[in-house]
Amino acid sequence: MISTDLPARVDVAVVGAGLAGLAAAERLRAAGASVVVLEARDRVGGRAWSETLGKARFDRGGQWIGPGQDRLAALAERMGVAQFATYSTGQKLLDDGAKVRRYAGEIPSLGPIELLQLHLALRRIDKLTARVSARDPLATPDAAALDARTVADEARRLSPRVRGVFDVAIGAIFGVDPAELSLLWFLAYLRAGGGMMNLSTIEGGAQERRFVGGTQTIAERWSERLDAPVVTAAPVRRIAQQGADLIVTSDRGKVAARSVVVAVPPPLTAAIEMSPSAPARDQLVQRAAMGAIVKVVIAYERAFWRERGLSGEVVSTRGPLAVLFDNTSSDGAQPALVGFVQASPARRWNGDTAPIVAQLVRWFGDDARTPLAIVTTDWSAEPWSRGCPVAVMPPGALTMAGTTLRQPVGRVHFAGTETAVEWTGYLEGALESGERAAREVVREL
Amino acid sequence: MISTDLPARVDVAVVGAGLAGLAAAERLRAAGASVVVLEARDRVGGRAWSETLGKARFDRGGQWIGPGQDRLAALAERMGVAQFATYSTGQKLLDDGAKVRRYAGEIPSLGPIELLQLHLALRRIDKLTARVSARDPLATPDAAALDARTVADEARRLSPRVRGVFDVAIGAIFGVDPAELSLLWFLAYLRAGGGMMNLSTIEGGAQERRFVGGTQTIAERWSERLDAPVVTAAPVRRIAQQGADLIVTSDRGKVAARSVVVAVPPPLTAAIEMSPSAPARDQLVQRAAMGAIVKVVIAYERAFWRERGLSGEVVSTRGPLAVLFDNTSSDGAQPALVGFVQASPARRWNGDTAPIVAQLVRWFGDDARTPLAIVTTDWSAEPWSRGCPVAVMPPGALTMAGTTLRQPVGRVHFAGTETAVEWTGYLEGALESGERAAREVVREL
Repeated sequence: MISTDLPARVDVAVVGAGLAGLAAAERLRAAGASVVVLEARDRVGGRAWSETLGKARFDRGGQWIGPGQDRLAALAERMGVAQFATYSTGQKLLDDGAKVRRYAGEIPSLGPIELLQLHLALRRIDKLTARVSARDPLATPDAAALDARTVADEARRLSPRVRGVFDVAIGAIFGVDPAELSLLWFLAYLRAGGGMMNLSTIEGGAQERRFVGGTQTIAERWSERLDAPVVTAAPVRRIAQQGADLIVTSDRGKVAARSVVVAVPPPLTAAIEMSPSAPARDQLVQRAAMGAIVKVVIAYERAFWRERGLSGEVVSTRGPLAVLFDNTSSDGAQPALVGFVQASPARRWNGDTAPIVAQLVRWFGDDARTPLAIVTTDWSAEPWSRGCPVAVMPPGALTMAGTTLRQPVGRVHFAGTETAVEWTGYLEGALESGERAAREVVREL
Repeated sequence: MISTDLPARVDVAVVGAGLAGLAAAERLRAAGASVVVLEARDRVGGRAWSETLGKARFDRGGQWIGPGQDRLAALAERMGVAQFATYSTGQKLLDDGAKVRRYAGEIPSLGPIELLQLHLALRRIDKLTARVSARDPLATPDAAALDARTVADEARRLSPRVRGVFDVAIGAIFGVDPAELSLLWFLAYLRAGGGMMNLSTIEGGAQERRFVGGTQTIAERWSERLDAPVVTAAPVRRIAQQGADLIVTSDRGKVAARSVVVAVPPPLTAAIEMSPSAPARDQLVQRAAMGAIVKVVIAYERAFWRERGLSGEVVSTRGPLAVLFDNTSSDGAQPALVGFVQASPARRWNGDTAPIVAQLVRWFGDDARTPLAIVTTDWSAEPWSRGCPVAVMPPGALTMAGTTLRQPVGRVHFAGTETAVEWTGYLEGALESGERAAREVVREL
C-alpha cells in the first residue's frame, strides 16, 4: 500500500515502484520477507503513466501489449485491467518528405526495387538475430566484431528512402539513431522480443493490444494490494554497506536492509552513491544511455481518418512526428491519435506543437486542424526516467562487461527492463527482471 | 585559499577545483567577480593528484607535459613548479605474449610486413585526422558516416599482432577498447592533440616532461594564491534557478550565484540535479563515459633497467600492464617505474599486484622481483572521477548533439578538459576550457 512512513528496518528495500520493482516486492513478500518499496516520484508505475484527456484515460508512457507477453497479460487480468485491440483497419500512409502515399500491409509503399532492398535488409537482420542469444550475446562466434559495429554501419548501403523508413523503425523501437546502437546489442534485443518485424507491427506484433483505462492502472492497483509499504517522493541517494546491513538513504530518511533490489533504469543507478563503490558496474552504466521520445496524444471530436478508410498509422521520414497510430479510447468515446517524436528531433524538442498539427493536416486534411487537445510528454525531461523507452548500449559495452548489468554487487541486486533477457525494454521485460531479482534475493535471505 | 566557509552569495560559483575550475575562478576574480570554488574531494587538483612514495612525491594521476601545451607550461612556471625530461635513453621492449623483443625508435619491433601495415594504418589515420576540425567535427564532409563507425571497425584489417600494438596505444590514450570510440570523435581528439604519434610518444610528444614534486603541486599552490575561497568536501548535488539566482546546493550548504561554471567530467555532471532540467545536454552526457585506468607506480632501490641499456619503456599486448615507463624522481633519488592497466583489464582489476611483478620480472629479470613499494590507483573506483583519463564519446553522440557539451544552459556554463578544443583530455585542455568558460561568464556579468 502507498505509505508515507519509512520503516527503520526491513529484509529487503526495493528502489523503484515501476513494474520491475513491484514484481520483485510481491515475490519477496510471498517468500516471507519484510519489504519496503522506495519510489522517487509522487506516483507509481515508472514508464507506465496514464492521465485523463477528454473522455478517457490515456497513456503518457508504455501502452501496448502483444503476443508472447504472458506475464503482463496474466498480471493485467489479475488486476482486473481489460485489454482491447489497437485499431488497425484501413490503409496506412508513408510520408517521405516529398509525397504522402497510401499503402496496405506491414511494409510502407516504396518502389519495387526499394521494397526488395528493404526485404533483403530485414531478412539479413533476421538471420543475424537468429545467431545471437538474448541471454548471452557474447557466445555468438563473431561477437566482438558485431559489437564493434553500429546498426547505421550495417544499414549504410540502403538507398536514402529505404534508409529513411529503416531509421524511423529504429527510432520507434529505441528512441535513438542507428549510429548509437551496437549491432550485437541490437540483435540480442531483437532476439529477446521476437525479431524486428514483431517489434514494429500492430497485428500479431508488440503493438497489438492496449489496456482499458491505461497501463498505469495495473501499477496503481498492484501497489494498493501489495502487503508492503510503497513510499513515494522518496528518491534514493545512497546505498552503503554498514556491517551486515545496507543503509539506504532517501529524501524521506534512511532504512536498514539485508538486501536491496535496485529497479530503476541504468543511467539513474549512476546517480545513486554506492559505498563501497562498484567500479566495474559503474563503467558499464556510464555507457548505457536512454533513448529520446516525445510522446504526443492528440484528441479529436471525430475519428475522421477512419471515415476515410485510413487506420491512422503513418510512417514519416520528415519530422517532427515519425510515426502515428490510432489511439481512440476503448469505448470509442474519445477519438485520438498518438505519435512519436523520436531520437535527434526529440532532443531538439522545444514544445511547439504547431509543426505537428501541420503534419496531421498534410496527412488527413482540414479536419485535423482543430484537435480538442494535444498532450506532449518529453521523457528526456523527466528527471526520474531521463529518457524513453529504454537504455541502449553503444558498441564495445557488451564486449567489455557482458551481463554485468544484471549481476548483483554484494547484496545489491538489479532489476528493470534493461536487465531482462525476455522482452528487454518492454513492460513484460520489467516483470521478468523483477522476478529474477527476487529469486536471487530469496536465495540469500 | 582553501576554506571551510561557504559564502551565502557570490557572482559566480565554480564546481570543481581541478585545473579547469581553478583557471575559470582566477579569470573571473581578475574580471572583478566574487567567486567561490566548491570541490567534492578533500583535496584540490581533480585528476592531478600526487603523493609521497619512498624518497619523492609521485603522481597518481596526470603527470606529463609536452610541446604545444603552453598554458600548462606558463602556469607551472608561475607556480614555481619546475619541469624535467622523462627518461627515455636506451632500448624499449615489446611483449607480444609469446616473446619479449628489444627495439629502438617510436614503433615497436614487428616484422617488416607488420611494420609496413602499422605505418600505413597510422598514415591513414593521420590523413583522416587532417580533414577533421577539433572545434567543429560535424563540418567534416562525411561526418555522419565517420560517426557511425568505431575505431575498432577502422582497424579490423590489421593482423593480430599489429592490432595488439594498436589497441595498447588506444588504451593508453583513452583507457578504452577501440570498439567504444566513435571514429569521428577519435579523429577530432587526435586533431586537438597534434595527432596519434604525438599523443603516443615521449620525445617531442605528450609524455616529454614531468613536474618536479608532482602535478598536484600546481593545483595546490594555485588554490592557495587564489583570491577566492576554495571549499573542499563540498560535493554539489543540485543547481536550481530561483528568480535571477542560481541556488547551488552542496554537502556544506547552499550558495546563491548569478552564474555557475561546472568544471567536472561529463558523467559526474549527470549526477547533479538541474532545475529546470536540461534534457538535450543530459542525453549527450548519458553517452559520454570515462575510460578505465589503473595507474601503478613501482619504486625500486636501483634503476636496474637503465644499467641494462633499457629506457624502461614497454609495450605489452598481454596484461595486466599494457605500457610501462621510467618514473624515477627528478633528482634520481627514488628510482621507479610507472605502468598502466587499461580498458577492459582495468575494469576487471581486483587489486592483486602479483601478476604485475611477474610481468616486471619477465621484462627485467630477478632485480624486479622485490620492489620497495607498489602504489595502485584505480581511477574507476574514485567516486569523484569515475574513471580516467578522459570521457570518451561513442558513435552517434557527436551527430546527435555536436558541440552541446560546451554550450551553456541558461547561466550554467561548462568547463573541464572534455569540453576543450585544444588538447582535449589533457591538463592543457582543462586550462583552455576554464578560460573559455570564464570568458562566457564575464560577458554576462
